[in-house]
Amino acid sequence: MKLEHIGIAVKKLSASIPLFEKLLNTPCYKTEAVESEQVNTAFFQTGESKIELLEAYAPGSVINKFIDKKGEALHHLAYQVEDIEKEAARLMGEGFQMIGEAPKMGADNKMVWFVHPKTTNGILIELVMEITN
Amino acid sequence: MKLEHIGIAVKKLSASIPLFEKLLNTPCYKTEAVESEQVNTAFFQTGESKIELLEAYAPGSVINKFIDKKGEALHHLAYQVEDIEKEAARLMGEGFQMIGEAPKMGADNKMVWFVHPKTTNGILIELVMEITN
Repeated sequence: MKLEHIGIAVKKLSASIPLFEKLLNTPCYKTEAVESEQVNTAFFQTGESKIELLEAYAPGSVINKFIDKKGEALHHLAYQVEDIEKEAARLMGEGFQMIGEAPKMGADNKMVWFVHPKTTNGILIELVMEITN
Repeated sequence: MKLEHIGIAVKKLSASIPLFEKLLNTPCYKTEAVESEQVNTAFFQTGESKIELLEAYAPGSVINKFIDKKGEALHHLAYQVEDIEKEAARLMGEGFQMIGEAPKMGADNKMVWFVHPKTTNGILIELVMEITN
């Protein structure tokens, strides 16, 4: 599996975008709201993988809940797969638990499906699949 | 900057290596002790970047302290640079703070130098440079 991006929870994109531009020495190339998660995202390319900053835009967003518990921190790892249903089936067969019954629409024109961190050593893993029309 | 690896703090490699082999669908290809950090490490290749599991082998290890505070979790992001002194100088010029006065020997025959997370939105960033003899 190829690492597609690393998700990082931040309080304010307006503060974190310029910080990560300096840290990674590369410009933020895209921002995008993701309604299913109530987050605004900002992307940076670093080699073949990306950094995705995540800011909650509504109080009930999972990112607010995460920051309340853990502060601004690494949030998830996203791996690119060719067939998300097939990879989820493989993982469930190995004893991992998926969050929700089916993949949903994520950022960056991709289908996404999370693996429950209680089954993965506490690490939130996201499967992502390019949508090809 | 290219992402070289993602460090994940775990309690026991003996439990986490088989779990990550199933999760990532790839075998652990190397284990190595790193004396400077009092950790045992285990590596998995995922595309151009790696997963590095980190287990403390002594009570005073930074990984024990991290797990006491945050549990088993994503620990750091490591970016490969060509000239570690030059990149550290660039970062310090931008207001980031390095941990320690100079790079040191890390896992995988590399020189490493960490950027202090208090200056990077809470994210521990490691610079790594291949040693070429």
